[in-house]
Amino acid sequence: MATETKEQKYKVVGTRPIRQDGFDKVMGKARFGADITLPGMVHGKVLRSPHAHAVIKSIDTSKAEAHPDVLAIALSADLAVVGEEMAELGEETYTALKYVKDKMLASDKALFKGHPIAALAATSPHLAEELLSLIEVDYEVLPSVTNVEDAMKPDAPLLHRQMTTGGINDEQVGGTNIAAHNQFDLGDIEKGFAAADRVFEREFRTKSVHQGYIEPQNGTASWGPDGHLTVWCSSQGHFGTRNSLAKLLGLHESKVKIVYMELGGGFGGKHALYLEPLAAVLSRKTGLPVKMTMSRAEVMEATGPASGSHIKAKIGVTSEGKITAGQASLAFESGAYPGASLGGAANNMFSPYDIENIHVDTYDVVDNKTKTSAYRAPGAPHGAFAVESVIDEIAEALDMDPMDLRIMNGAHEGTRRLNGVVNPRVGMLETAEAVKSHPHYSAPLEGKNRGRGVAMGFWGNGAGPASAMASVASDGGVLLTVGTSDVGGTRATAAQQFAEVLGMAAEDVLPQVGDTDSVGFSSGAGGSGVTFKTGWAAYEAAQDVKRQLVARAAAIWETDVDEVEYVDGVIRHRSDPELHTTLKELAPNLNTTGGPIVGRANLNNPGAGGAHGANIVDVEVDPETGKVKILRFTAFQDAGTAINPDFVEGQIQGGAVQGIGWALNEEYFMGAEGQMMNTSLLDYRMPTILDLPMIEAVIIEVPNPAHPFGVRGVGEVGLVPPLAAIANAIHNATGIRMPELPMSPSVMLAAIESHGNGH
Amino acid sequence: MATETKEQKYKVVGTRPIRQDGFDKVMGKARFGADITLPGMVHGKVLRSPHAHAVIKSIDTSKAEAHPDVLAIALSADLAVVGEEMAELGEETYTALKYVKDKMLASDKALFKGHPIAALAATSPHLAEELLSLIEVDYEVLPSVTNVEDAMKPDAPLLHRQMTTGGINDEQVGGTNIAAHNQFDLGDIEKGFAAADRVFEREFRTKSVHQGYIEPQNGTASWGPDGHLTVWCSSQGHFGTRNSLAKLLGLHESKVKIVYMELGGGFGGKHALYLEPLAAVLSRKTGLPVKMTMSRAEVMEATGPASGSHIKAKIGVTSEGKITAGQASLAFESGAYPGASLGGAANNMFSPYDIENIHVDTYDVVDNKTKTSAYRAPGAPHGAFAVESVIDEIAEALDMDPMDLRIMNGAHEGTRRLNGVVNPRVGMLETAEAVKSHPHYSAPLEGKNRGRGVAMGFWGNGAGPASAMASVASDGGVLLTVGTSDVGGTRATAAQQFAEVLGMAAEDVLPQVGDTDSVGFSSGAGGSGVTFKTGWAAYEAAQDVKRQLVARAAAIWETDVDEVEYVDGVIRHRSDPELHTTLKELAPNLNTTGGPIVGRANLNNPGAGGAHGANIVDVEVDPETGKVKILRFTAFQDAGTAINPDFVEGQIQGGAVQGIGWALNEEYFMGAEGQMMNTSLLDYRMPTILDLPMIEAVIIEVPNPAHPFGVRGVGEVGLVPPLAAIANAIHNATGIRMPELPMSPSVMLAAIESHGNGH
Repeated sequence: MATETKEQKYKVVGTRPIRQDGFDKVMGKARFGADITLPGMVHGKVLRSPHAHAVIKSIDTSKAEAHPDVLAIALSADLAVVGEEMAELGEETYTALKYVKDKMLASDKALFKGHPIAALAATSPHLAEELLSLIEVDYEVLPSVTNVEDAMKPDAPLLHRQMTTGGINDEQVGGTNIAAHNQFDLGDIEKGFAAADRVFEREFRTKSVHQGYIEPQNGTASWGPDGHLTVWCSSQGHFGTRNSLAKLLGLHESKVKIVYMELGGGFGGKHALYLEPLAAVLSRKTGLPVKMTMSRAEVMEATGPASGSHIKAKIGVTSEGKITAGQASLAFESGAYPGASLGGAANNMFSPYDIENIHVDTYDVVDNKTKTSAYRAPGAPHGAFAVESVIDEIAEALDMDPMDLRIMNGAHEGTRRLNGVVNPRVGMLETAEAVKSHPHYSAPLEGKNRGRGVAMGFWGNGAGPASAMASVASDGGVLLTVGTSDVGGTRATAAQQFAEVLGMAAEDVLPQVGDTDSVGFSSGAGGSGVTFKTGWAAYEAAQDVKRQLVARAAAIWETDVDEVEYVDGVIRHRSDPELHTTLKELAPNLNTTGGPIVGRANLNNPGAGGAHGANIVDVEVDPETGKVKILRFTAFQDAGTAINPDFVEGQIQGGAVQGIGWALNEEYFMGAEGQMMNTSLLDYRMPTILDLPMIEAVIIEVPNPAHPFGVRGVGEVGLVPPLAAIANAIHNATGIRMPELPMSPSVMLAAIESHGNGH
Repeated sequence: MATETKEQKYKVVGTRPIRQDGFDKVMGKARFGADITLPGMVHGKVLRSPHAHAVIKSIDTSKAEAHPDVLAIALSADLAVVGEEMAELGEETYTALKYVKDKMLASDKALFKGHPIAALAATSPHLAEELLSLIEVDYEVLPSVTNVEDAMKPDAPLLHRQMTTGGINDEQVGGTNIAAHNQFDLGDIEKGFAAADRVFEREFRTKSVHQGYIEPQNGTASWGPDGHLTVWCSSQGHFGTRNSLAKLLGLHESKVKIVYMELGGGFGGKHALYLEPLAAVLSRKTGLPVKMTMSRAEVMEATGPASGSHIKAKIGVTSEGKITAGQASLAFESGAYPGASLGGAANNMFSPYDIENIHVDTYDVVDNKTKTSAYRAPGAPHGAFAVESVIDEIAEALDMDPMDLRIMNGAHEGTRRLNGVVNPRVGMLETAEAVKSHPHYSAPLEGKNRGRGVAMGFWGNGAGPASAMASVASDGGVLLTVGTSDVGGTRATAAQQFAEVLGMAAEDVLPQVGDTDSVGFSSGAGGSGVTFKTGWAAYEAAQDVKRQLVARAAAIWETDVDEVEYVDGVIRHRSDPELHTTLKELAPNLNTTGGPIVGRANLNNPGAGGAHGANIVDVEVDPETGKVKILRFTAFQDAGTAINPDFVEGQIQGGAVQGIGWALNEEYFMGAEGQMMNTSLLDYRMPTILDLPMIEAVIIEVPNPAHPFGVRGVGEVGLVPPLAAIANAIHNATGIRMPELPMSPSVMLAAIESHGNGH
């Protein structure tokens, strides 16, 4: 049976039309969160703890309140009451709510340097900042701990007096920083290792890294006199922001409206609330709109980076290279409050492979740093760094081609993953084969201190509810409103999927992201799910428009609706060749032939396909300075169907660049008193264009059988393989296996020296 | 058969819940057009003609362009080209387009004082205003004409060289200010007068009056680099604004987005464009957002008031009081360009009555004043002033009670109106009977110089397309987006109609007015149609939500959808009493049981029911000063079904107050050089609270059979009877029939003197 190619099947899907929101962004016209200005608006600033760990003995706001320029002050007690209602809550819920509240504004303890203590409103941001000094906080400074291993030690300073390890298999009750210990099992790990001829076990360490989005967090709130709250902010999930904010402030969801502002990057870090509830409280108190924005230092110190981690990985393999067992222990710091991205690490680290027996222990550990947050495939890069490093070592030990070893063990349709999901059609083998057959893989690599590495990675993807609304304008253009934040052009890919259904040009679909009052509930931009779920909603909204157009034509032609069909953008009578029309022809006459046409769709469909990725990377290591230079980088990724290949390439390249930064340079440098030492982008060194070669992006398309156009998510898996791929390339160049990140010049130099000394 | 009362039938309809948008408006938090501020925004001001009539020989912008503070200048030629495309247009279309363009920015002639000549952008409104003086315009001043009778004279200054009278029965070709002469006929007017025993013929004159909305016109435009235009403005019909603006600027409708800002009054005057296209051109030229607002003087001189008029009315009646013929000649000034509200006058003036033979001539006359616009029941107050004055005279002549005469001739179901429409169920007789039986009608009126008058009035109402979108939030609140501007609480009445269907509380429905990209096409707030059409859209959207809730419950209960019903806010299984739930109970679980629920409706339903109104008014005329004092005012109106009686009363009272102003004080005072002399609200004297008694509003409810809840429009007819009712009261007090408006102290004094002299 001949299979239709994508080009034959689709007219708009797979093309690269100009992105509708691109002009405004390129020309500086797009309105981001901080671009809102309202009549009477005033400004808020946050007083933050100068200590990494301290008891707050008292907060005296009397001086500040007496100052005529202080318009309002917000403290923890201004957030929705939990203390008095404690009697009605279970201890667990109470604690969870206290964590949420205390993260916003500390009550009894400051748990990291930068922890918000109070917020203050004044007529200008500078004035507000200056007036913060009038708030007097009496601290009792405590010893602090800012890395996961120290935090787990029995004599570590304890953050939360009430904390017990919620997980299984653990005797600790109270007196711990380990918030949870969980175990994940597939098959029988003992049997797996028993079947192995060789077992490889290694230990890895990574540091906190930040997503590095350009736009600092912001929030502008207007609390109406009737308790109706409107918030302008940039959020990856403004419906999620609405619901969290409603809880924190004790409001009904329907009384809170979040206006979507353009998102200046998020990568997982813009789901959590920071300034929004503070601005809301200050607005309630002042009766005026209040705007708050963060400085870069506030972003680095007090928003959510990815966890630093301590990982042990152990893989059993037969002499022929068949992996029989995979085991890992993952300890992630979560920062001041529990909730590190351990599930993402555990569930994805072994998933490129078909392994029968897996066991993973995870430890969620609090320490005196800002609460961590999601960062692109949260947890998976950590896990892949460990697993893919060990796999590389196995290939070397067994004298196998590293891609052959991976292909031999590759996950496929029917493979059961650690989370119990049985793979539908996945593209692991196609991706791996694409690596092997790519010219880069076999290209000669000459010169001293140079090496090549490969690694793979998996991300399960996710979806959730999504909504779309499509109004046909009188010129035949369609105004498409979606409910998900736009990350990387997702509103444009929704427009393409809409246009495909109706056989219209992508540029005739004008997409926008609606506010929370104007479109149905939509889960945020997470799980690489936007193009999957919102594209699907756009697809269904287009089907809805199509049905109405067909019915309208039937009504105009006074014929039965079953007699009319929509084929290739033409609405035509099945048997009367005289009767045909198009959307553009009908559009000016809709109002007078029955009314406007608006399509809508609201869904929560499962089936977001998992995505496999791979990298080939060439490096050169300078033995004098320890500096690692990326010579060539090819990134492979199964996109399912690439709706807009430009955007998919952009995602692949962006993931690679973030991976390069994480691998080679980025880290939270913590001082002796628990303070972050490198809070500027000059000191927190992300890769610039000068540090990078052109990243070649190779799209593999193994359509997701669950999606009408075969879409898989593409946003996250690109960050999974680079850490290990670069480590493997460094090993290939130097013979050194790097067990920790970042592999910065100083670390590399030490390793080279140590290696030269025979260690 | 016992009829269900409204109270028995409805739970929310007919109640007076707190208006959702009320808090913000009362507290000064609502954002009107001028409240928008955008990053990089600059300001525009308009250079206006100082002459009422002048040839524009040249506009020299060179000095202005050379000035470093001038950011951009807009001239007529910057609007969408019509000149070059003239060849392709018919002469008529070309002329119509030229009128539209020239009204925005004059090209060859200035036709009224205040006519926009150019617009200029600078960093502040004050700077822009100052810099306007650098634009040099060479005028050749012409004689001007500023009232309808002078403009119709053969030797009148001619505004448009190309103008011919488009109407029938007229030999004038070119060389006229009469743009159209139209005739309306019902029955046989000659036969009608032949059947009459007596014929009454009188002549009436009215002056230009302004709607007097509080909020001046405004428009802020941001022209994107891709030609995508966003405009923030207050408009009675933002979809209409979108479409007109697109035409004027040569853009596709779908590329223009109008963001609805709260409307600070309109009354018909906020449909037309003024500043929006100028701001758009300046934004295109500067690449920046441009804001423009009018001063009060600009509003008065250069927006659209109601026409001044010259009316002849002639009514034939039998000795018993049966009206056999109604005839009128209406000459309305339209201002500088054609298009006075003559249809509204002609079609409604005789419509309170069942008259077989009617003939109306209308003359649309240009003069050197700002182009007129719609004003609440446009044209109908003029017509009713004439007809209801003559009817009063007839009653007096026949020695009949004026209400008995009206009831004898009252329109009813089956009456054919002048426009050919056969009345469905209307409330004329119920309204007239309510007048007769009201205590005010029979209350003694003692004291000198006091009198009582009555009058009736009709307005046909209208509707058009309307859209609504309703999203169920997780707390069970519903976010309702409508597409029509809110006038007088219409979003709240849509919410009430929505709530009624679902058996929920009105306060749980949170209504907003969507922008033109976020909701389906909706015609504007006109024709008293919003509560009718948008309420109906809300009703249908609620039915859509109801269907989905029933289907969702059926899916959860794994039962057939036909087994589930929605009764009184409860979703229940028809046969299993255990299975029941509510919207509030289902709401938190929608996302996980199939996805969000969003209802929508888009319709264009006919059947807006015509509305009858009536007034009883008591006055006292001061014979020394000529001042007329309103002692008591009772206003009656058939609302069909009053969705929210508070709002209906507000509309009735507002119409009465505007009518009192029009009757007694308001007028455009024109100077010898064609300039308006009273452009401030101090000089253009609208009634204040000190001039008014409490207006008693009496709602009559004769449900409109075409609407699901029986709604008729209520916004306009309230302004129709007052002019004549007050004139009739003055006659009753003084014996003088006033043939002209306003009946201001000076005019009254002259009439009293003249009357005393036996004239």
